[in-house]
Formats: sequence, structure tokens, C-alpha cells
Amino acid sequence: MDFATLLGLTTGLGLVVGAIIMGGSFLQFLDGPSAMIVLGGTTAALCVSHPIEEVLQAFNAFFKIFSSRKVTAQEVVNVMVRIAEISRREGLLALENIRTDNVVLKKACKLIADSAGPQLIHDTLRIEIHSLKRRHQIGETVFKSLGTFSPAFGLIGTLIGLVQMLGRLNDPKSLGPAMAVALLTTFYGALLSNLFFLPVAAKLRARTYQEVLNLEIIFEGARCILQNNNPLLVRDKLSSFVPPKERTVGR
Amino acid sequence: MDFATLLGLTTGLGLVVGAIIMGGSFLQFLDGPSAMIVLGGTTAALCVSHPIEEVLQAFNAFFKIFSSRKVTAQEVVNVMVRIAEISRREGLLALENIRTDNVVLKKACKLIADSAGPQLIHDTLRIEIHSLKRRHQIGETVFKSLGTFSPAFGLIGTLIGLVQMLGRLNDPKSLGPAMAVALLTTFYGALLSNLFFLPVAAKLRARTYQEVLNLEIIFEGARCILQNNNPLLVRDKLSSFVPPKERTVGR
Amino acid sequence: MDFATLLGLTTGLGLVVGAIIMGGSFLQFLDGPSAMIVLGGTTAALCVSHPIEEVLQAFNAFFKIFSSRKVTAQEVVNVMVRIAEISRREGLLALENIRTDNVVLKKACKLIADSAGPQLIHDTLRIEIHSLKRRHQIGETVFKSLGTFSPAFGLIGTLIGLVQMLGRLNDPKSLGPAMAVALLTTFYGALLSNLFFLPVAAKLRARTYQEVLNLEIIFEGARCILQNNNPLLVRDKLSSFVPPKERTVGR
Amino acid sequence: MDFATLLGLTTGLGLVVGAIIMGGSFLQFLDGPSAMIVLGGTTAALCVSHPIEEVLQAFNAFFKIFSSRKVTAQEVVNVMVRIAEISRREGLLALENIRTDNVVLKKACKLIADSAGPQLIHDTLRIEIHSLKRRHQIGETVFKSLGTFSPAFGLIGTLIGLVQMLGRLNDPKSLGPAMAVALLTTFYGALLSNLFFLPVAAKLRARTYQEVLNLEIIFEGARCILQNNNPLLVRDKLSSFVPPKERTVGR
Amino acid sequence: MDFATLLGLTTGLGLVVGAIIMGGSFLQFLDGPSAMIVLGGTTAALCVSHPIEEVLQAFNAFFKIFSSRKVTAQEVVNVMVRIAEISRREGLLALENIRTDNVVLKKACKLIADSAGPQLIHDTLRIEIHSLKRRHQIGETVFKSLGTFSPAFGLIGTLIGLVQMLGRLNDPKSLGPAMAVALLTTFYGALLSNLFFLPVAAKLRARTYQEVLNLEIIFEGARCILQNNNPLLVRDKLSSFVPPKERTVGR
Repeated sequence: MDFATLLGLTTGLGLVVGAIIMGGSFLQFLDGPSAMIVLGGTTAALCVSHPIEEVLQAFNAFFKIFSSRKVTAQEVVNVMVRIAEISRREGLLALENIRTDNVVLKKACKLIADSAGPQLIHDTLRIEIHSLKRRHQIGETVFKSLGTFSPAFGLIGTLIGLVQMLGRLNDPKSLGPAMAVALLTTFYGALLSNLFFLPVAAKLRARTYQEVLNLEIIFEGARCILQNNNPLLVRDKLSSFVPPKERTVGR
Repeated sequence: MDFATLLGLTTGLGLVVGAIIMGGSFLQFLDGPSAMIVLGGTTAALCVSHPIEEVLQAFNAFFKIFSSRKVTAQEVVNVMVRIAEISRREGLLALENIRTDNVVLKKACKLIADSAGPQLIHDTLRIEIHSLKRRHQIGETVFKSLGTFSPAFGLIGTLIGLVQMLGRLNDPKSLGPAMAVALLTTFYGALLSNLFFLPVAAKLRARTYQEVLNLEIIFEGARCILQNNNPLLVRDKLSSFVPPKERTVGR
Repeated sequence: MDFATLLGLTTGLGLVVGAIIMGGSFLQFLDGPSAMIVLGGTTAALCVSHPIEEVLQAFNAFFKIFSSRKVTAQEVVNVMVRIAEISRREGLLALENIRTDNVVLKKACKLIADSAGPQLIHDTLRIEIHSLKRRHQIGETVFKSLGTFSPAFGLIGTLIGLVQMLGRLNDPKSLGPAMAVALLTTFYGALLSNLFFLPVAAKLRARTYQEVLNLEIIFEGARCILQNNNPLLVRDKLSSFVPPKERTVGR
Repeated sequence: MDFATLLGLTTGLGLVVGAIIMGGSFLQFLDGPSAMIVLGGTTAALCVSHPIEEVLQAFNAFFKIFSSRKVTAQEVVNVMVRIAEISRREGLLALENIRTDNVVLKKACKLIADSAGPQLIHDTLRIEIHSLKRRHQIGETVFKSLGTFSPAFGLIGTLIGLVQMLGRLNDPKSLGPAMAVALLTTFYGALLSNLFFLPVAAKLRARTYQEVLNLEIIFEGARCILQNNNPLLVRDKLSSFVPPKERTVGR
Repeated sequence: MDFATLLGLTTGLGLVVGAIIMGGSFLQFLDGPSAMIVLGGTTAALCVSHPIEEVLQAFNAFFKIFSSRKVTAQEVVNVMVRIAEISRREGLLALENIRTDNVVLKKACKLIADSAGPQLIHDTLRIEIHSLKRRHQIGETVFKSLGTFSPAFGLIGTLIGLVQMLGRLNDPKSLGPAMAVALLTTFYGALLSNLFFLPVAAKLRARTYQEVLNLEIIFEGARCILQNNNPLLVRDKLSSFVPPKERTVGR
């Protein structure tokens, strides 16, 4: 459970709302048509720019930020060392029975147990890593699009408001409030983009990096097990992926 | 038929028009000269920046978004597995009779049937994939250009309006409406760019990615069939291109 | 002769001038000092940022857009097939007599006729392609620089005008016209950049791509002729560079 | 100890404060809610966009700018030459006793002493260099994020202030001061970004480059020692990494 | 001596000053505190963002633009052909006596004379080229930083001026002049960036490209001399680096 994300979102919103209340009424900052232009326009632009499956995938990835447990590089290294120990003790065939949630690790074990050629294992795992990377990047791309479209529709909303306001300039008293309302869409767009869409895109990228790194460890580990079946060597080589401070001493 | 694109375009436009009508008259937002500057200027800049064939190709690609059926990665994998089964049962020569709309798949089958060398097959398919990718990217580039030029000509139109308005400042009453009209070009440019041009460019990129992915599957499949003529292995390797959830169980 | 470029430039300018005249006097949009700041400043920045040879090369490339005939990929493929037929009929030595304007094709033929090693041919043609690409990119870079500097000097001119206007605010009547003049530089800069400099840069990039593609076809063709002297195979392989619809049926 | 960074930060701040005091009261530029929106919003966006470990790592890297001694390329070359001399005199096994703070150098020595295969040494050091590079880049990425979010929340704060000010336009006297306060958030955001966040990100990048260069020297040196155990050759090859003027004459 | 740079800088400045004088007093555009904020702030940000050695290196590179003679590609080709002739007539050992200012050429000659292995020569020259490229890029990076920071501090200065002006709105007469002064910093920042910093960065990049190209010619020439000691072949291959029109006919 990733509390930092939730905390960041709530504190950020709280601070902005707090600053608004300190300066006056909060109601002044709520406007239906303004929200409609920004949210509706951004959603519409998203529907045109991304296939519907990618949009669903992105929101799925967003909710996974909160639910999924992060697997550290050291944990993956430990798993690969344990697998190397099993394969040494019980032979490569024993890898067929290894249970894991990780699709790529499962495939690697199966390929080694099937005694597939090193080239085939190399190619297959490379394709798996590349596919996963691409699928994870979709989430980032969708949220980046949202982060670009929401301020744009904020500007569009403000232009609509300004044109309407300037059209009836005969009543100078209504000028101020009308312009305040016109600026609300720009405010909505900027806030959505900078507090929600762009940060979520960045977090998804950090997540993708972590998962791809873990797959790279699995990839190098599988190559290592195939080449020389020595758990100590596997630990030595794979620990280079882990920051020096976090490296667990072998044995 | 891609309904999401059409739905996005119409809802987005509907929302903007709705928000305009809620705030006043819609007629106020229609202005001939403003549209002329934005649309005409953008078209002119496009004619200078892209050869006429590329512009036609881009609009062709745009209409294909609505008409063409999307072929999923799993479908391509299934086709390649079926081809592997045929080539195993009836020999590589049988691939000559395979019927397909896909130019690259056809060329791959012909090359295998002609028992061309692996290097020639590799090179030829790489060139085919690269050519197709480039042709598809043209559409994206053209719509991105449109998405850059339309707000620029929006700004140019507004500058024209402002200069004219400021030139005859003696009548303060006409100030507001004149400025309202001046802002319309910026509004047109921003709306065209963010609701139409940029989202369409993004959708074309997503399409290109899907097609190139399909060609990569064909490429890997052809290599696999050449190397070891085993349909099970072909399915195993190619299924790595497909998201784990969508993978069809072989046999 | 590339009419689209000329047409785009004249229509674009015509539309803007038309829109100006529809809204008032055209004379109001002409101002000597404003043009001096934008054109002079942009030229000065260009002289600092690019060696004089590159600037001349860029304008040379610009005029070539109008004069030079575009050679299509299919034409180059046909030439390479004909060369393969000659070399098959009359031997590789016959390539020495082939006449062509294309420097790279000439060099390729000479190298093959001299029976240079494949590695030397590969390296030399790679260097030729890379040199030509770089020389063509200079034109694009120079026009992109112009497209960046002209709006910047437009802004600088407007700032000068604003400072002067604000300095003598005692006469409110002159405020409007002074600001109108101040905005002219921004207008000049934006128009020059978006109707001329940036589109020309884009067109030069498209041209470069076409020429590099043609050289790649020559490169692959030369390799093919060296490896197996079969015109049919040469046509088959090189036609992958051409869009499927435009491919001429061999023989 | 990096005085330039500290000096830059203090002089920059001093100049801005000085310019403010020369023009009026400094108190006018202090506003609690404004600081709350910019600092709080930026921090909140950072918590959403980066895992908490990365944020801590970034601030850790920031403080290291001041404390850590810079190791020049020439020093690393000298160390590698000395190691080559030791390994020549006392054999490769002697490298096991070499003491160094550098994790990668230690690993390189251990691998050579263990007489690991050249491929294993190559792969392991490549992974180490890549891991270190990635860890160092995190600091840069975090400060770049801060440099992007702080002006954005500055703009958001100004929008809040403008909306509130325009809402109560009945008191024209309060207009000026209210707008002054509204602009303060933009000022805070721009100052933080351009005097602190972006420059620190740039300095961290320069640091990363220096450390990666040092690792590359270690990597090439280790390869050189393995291939031909000649200290003169090691110095000759590695000195190519050092600017000509700073190269120490060997022996 | 590069007159174009000097001419560009002086004409650009002259045009701007001329336009200012045509529109009013020049003194109005001079303001001490404004210059202090822009120049001081930019310098401070530079000190934080780049190590002091890199800043000195950048200014050193800037002055070299004026002093250093440009060596054309054809000249380097001629030198390499002459070296090939010497090495053919007098043997590879004769290369040890070749005198040149170019560090890389000297190293190449020494390595060939020492009959070092082709791999060692290849690696060493690659490192030399990469090091030189990196050192030259520093100048470009520093001037690009200056070109980014100067308009940013221009904006910061204008914000300070606006806040101070709005704080004492009771005197409407002082409004105009105060705002004029506030805008001066933006003017300074934009002028410095677009007439000086960014163009110089671009010129440094062009210079770097030329020098790296010359090194690539030396690199290819050295490889060619090692492989087959034929001056005619060396000229033939290296002349591919030179634009067709400038190629000198051999012999």
C-alpha cells in the first residue's frame, strides 16, 4: 500500500482548499460549467487520442499504485539465488515446479527446465521484458496526455468566458465576477494537471522502471544459471543491480 | 469501426457548445474572418511544410481510423501458428499458396517458399517493416504540424484584431466587442489543436505501434518457422508478445 | 518545380492581408522600425549562431525546393535494377561507364568496377550517406533557428514599445496607437516564423528524408549486386523500400 | 567542499533581496499563505510523483554536493596505473588486498584476483556502472520535478488570488495590494525554480557525469590489466580520458 | 578570426539601440537595479548549476571562436594523404617524427609507429574523440544554461517591480513609469538570451561538430593506413567526408 501517493494527493488538495478559505469563500471556486468544460473536454480529447483499452489499462495501473506491494531488487536477487541453489541440488529439471506470480520468472524456469537453447531463452525473455515495458508505459502516456489536455481545456474555457464577458461590457459591475469565473477553468486545469495527472504519470514511470529492473535481474539470473550453475556466482553478479548499502551478505 | 474517436470528437464539441450556450449566445462565437485566418493560415503553413502526397496520405490515414478493423496481437500469433502447422504438414513450399491481405506476411511466405537465405529474408522483412513504420509516421507528423500551426495562427489573428482595435481607441464602447472578436481566433486555434489535431496524431501513433508490433510478430514467426519447424515452439515464443491475460492456451 | 510551397506561401500571405483589409486599413500594419528590429535582430542572431557557409548553404537549399525535380523511390529502384542487368550481361567492369548525376551512385559503380572489397564499399558509401545527411540537415537547422529567433525579437520589439509608451503615460490618447505599434513586432515575428521559417524547415526535412532514402536504396542495391548478381532478386529486395501501391511489377 | 554552489545560492538570494529593498519594503514580499501554496503544493506533487525512497535519496545527494570531495579523472588514472604496477610485480592475486572506498574498483580488483573470466568481469562492471548511473540520476530527476512543479503552483496560487480579488471588485482601492499578493506566489515559484531547484539538478548531473567517467576509466583500466599487464600501456590508454593539458607525464 | 560573430553581435545591438533612439530617449532603457537582478541572478544560478572549471572552460571556448583558425575537412584529408605517402615511402616507423598541433593525430601517428594492435589504436582514438567531444559540449551546455536563466531572472525582476508598483497604487501618475522600469528586466533577459547566449551556444555546437568531423577523418585515415598502405585509396575513402564540390582532385 503506497501511502505517500494518497498523502500527497490529500495534503496538496487540503493546502489549496485551506489557502482558498483563508482568503475568502470556498463556494466562489465551485462552478459547474467550468468543471464541465475542463473535465469533459479533457475526457473527450483522451477518447480521441487513445484506444479505449489503453485508457482502461491506465486507470487499472493507477489503482495498482495503491494496492500492489513493491518488490525490491534485493528480494528478486534472493529469489534467483534460491532458484540457483535448487537447480544445483536437484538439477535444472526441478525448476519446472517453482511457483511464482511473476509471469516472466515462470517462463524462464519453464524454458530452462525444458532445456531450450540459450538463444531461444534469450530471445523469449527479451520479448517478454519488452512487452511488459510497453504495456506499463501506456499508463504513463495516458496520464501525460491528461496532464497536457487539462490545462489546454482550462485555457479554452477561460477564452469562452472572456469572449462572453467582453461581449456585454455595458455593465461594468459584472466585469470582475465574470472574469473570476472565466479564470476558474484555467485554475481547474492547472490544478488537475500539476497535482494529479503529471505526478501520477511520474509515479507510474518510477514503478515501470522498478519492474523492468526486476525483470532484468531475472534475465541475467537465468543466463547465469544456464552458464555456470553456481549460486555464489549468481549472487555476486546479481548483487551489482542492488545499491551497495542494501546488499545482503551472501550465506 | 472505431466509435471512441467519433464519440470523443462529438461529445467534446457538444460540451464546448453547451457551455457556450449556457453562458450566452452561440452566434457570438461565430466569425468568418477569424475562421479564415486560423483555417487558411494553418492550411497554407501545412502546404509549405509537407509535400502534397504526405498531406493526402495523412488524411487517408485519418479516415482509416474509422473504417479499418484493428487486428490484435493474439490474432497475428494464431495466424503464424497456423502457418507453422501448414509448413510442417505440407512442407515450406506450401506457404506459397497462403492468402492474406498483409503485404509483409505475403512477402515472408513467398521468401520462405522460394527457400531464400535467412539473411535475405531477415533484411527484406526489416526493410518492409521500416518502410511501413515511416509511411505510418507521416500521418502522425502531419497532424502534429497542424496541432502546432493552428494555435500559432490563432495568436496571429488575435494580434491582428488587437492592433486594429487599439488603432481606433477613440470609441471606448466598441472596445469590448472588438476584443471579444480578436480573442476568437485564439479560441478556434486552441480548440482545433486540442480537440482534433493533437488527439488524432496520438491515435495515429497508437495505431502505428499496433501495426508495427504485428509485423514484429510476423518477423519473429518467420524466423522461428525457418529455424525449427515446430508449431508449439512458435506459439510459445510468439505468445510473449501478447499480454498474459489475453494469451490463448495452445491446443 | 514544387508549386505547393509557392502556393502555400502566397495563399497564406494573401489570407492574412485579406483579413487585415476586411478589418480596416492595411497601412496600419506597416512600420519601418518594427520590421527593422525583427528582421535585423533575427539576421544578427543568425550570423552569431551559424557559420556564414552554413547560412549560404541553407538559402541555397531553400531555392532548390522550387527548382530541383523530386526523384521517387521507384525510379531509384528501376535504375538499380537496370544497373544489375548491365553488370550481369556485361560484367562488373561495365559499371565504370554508367553515367549519372548522383555522386553516391557514381562512387558505388566505380568501387564495384574497381572490384574493391565489400567492406571498403560498405564503409565508403556509409560515409557518403552520412556526409550528405549532415549537409542537408544544416538547411533545416538554420531555418529552425530563424523560426525560433524571429518571435523572440518580436517580443523584444514589443517590450521596447511598451517601455517607451509607459514612459510617457501623460497623454492617454496616444496610448492605444502606441500599443498597436508595439504589438506589430510580435505580429511580424509570429507570422514570419509560422508561415515561412518553420514550414520551410519542415519541407527541407522531408526533402532530406527522401534523398537519404534514395541513397539507402542505392546502398542496398550495390550490396545486392556484389553478393549475387541477379536483377530479379535486386528488384524483389529493393521494392520493399517502395509503398506497396506504387511498386512496379518487375518484367 | 563545493563553495561555488553555496556562494551562488547566497549571492543570488542576496542580489534579489537587495534589489527588493532598493525598491521599497521587504516585508511586502513575505506572505504566509502564498508560501504555503507554493511550498506545500510542490511538496505534495513530489510525494505523488516519486517514491519516498527516491526523494530521500535526492536530498541526500544534494547534501553530498557540499561535503564530498571531487575525484579528478587524472587521480583515477593514477590509481589504475599503480594497480597495474602492483599486479605486474606481485601477480594478479595481489589485487585482493587493495583498499579503496570505491565499490566498483573493489569489485573489479576482487574479480581479477579471483581470475574470473573476462566476460563475467565485463558484464558485472557494466551492471555496476549502469546501477550507479541510474541511482545518481534519481537526484537529478527529483530536483527537475521540483523545478517544474514550483512555478506551476506559483501560477495556481496567483489564479486563486486573482479569482478572489475579482470577486470583490467593489472596493477599487484594495485592487492593487490584492493583485500584488496574488503575484507573490508566481514570484516564489519562479525564484525557487531558477535559483535553487533547476541549478541543483544541473549540478547533480555534472557530478553524475564525473563519477560515471571515473567508473569508465576503472572499467577500461581493468580490461587493460587483464589483457596485457603493462603499466605503461595502461597509462597511455587511460590518459586519453583526461584533457590534454591535465595529463601527467608518466614516470 | 571569425568576423561574422562579431559583426552579428554589433549589428544586432546597434539595430536595437537604433530602434530605441528612433522611438525616444535611450536613457530610459538603462536601469542599474534591473541589470543587477538579471546579470547577478543569472550568474548566481550558473555558479550553482555548473562546476567552476566548466564555467571557465565555456568562456575560454567563447574567446576561441574569435581567435582560432577553422581547419576544413579537405585540409585534414590532405594531411592524412600526405601521412599515408610518408608511411608508404619511409615505413610506418617514420610516422613518429610527424609534427602536428592536433593531439589526436599525434597520438594516432605514435600508436601506428609503435606498431600497436589495431584494436588498441581503435579503442584509444575512440576514447580521445569521445573525451574531446564531451569537453567541447561543456561550452555549449553552459551558454545554453545562461540562455535559459537570463529570461527567467528577467521575469523574476518584472514580478518584483510589479508587486512594488501595485503595493502603492495610490499615486496613479507613477504607475506608467514604474511599470516601464519593471518591464526592463524582461527586456534585458530576452535580449541577452536571444542575441548573445543562445547564438553563442549554437556557434559552439557548430564548431564542435567541425572538430569531431576532423577527428573522424583522422580516425578513418589511421585505420586505412594500417589496413592497406595506399595513399590513393586513403584519398578516395576520406574524400567522402568532404562535400562533392570542395573535393580536390587527387594527384
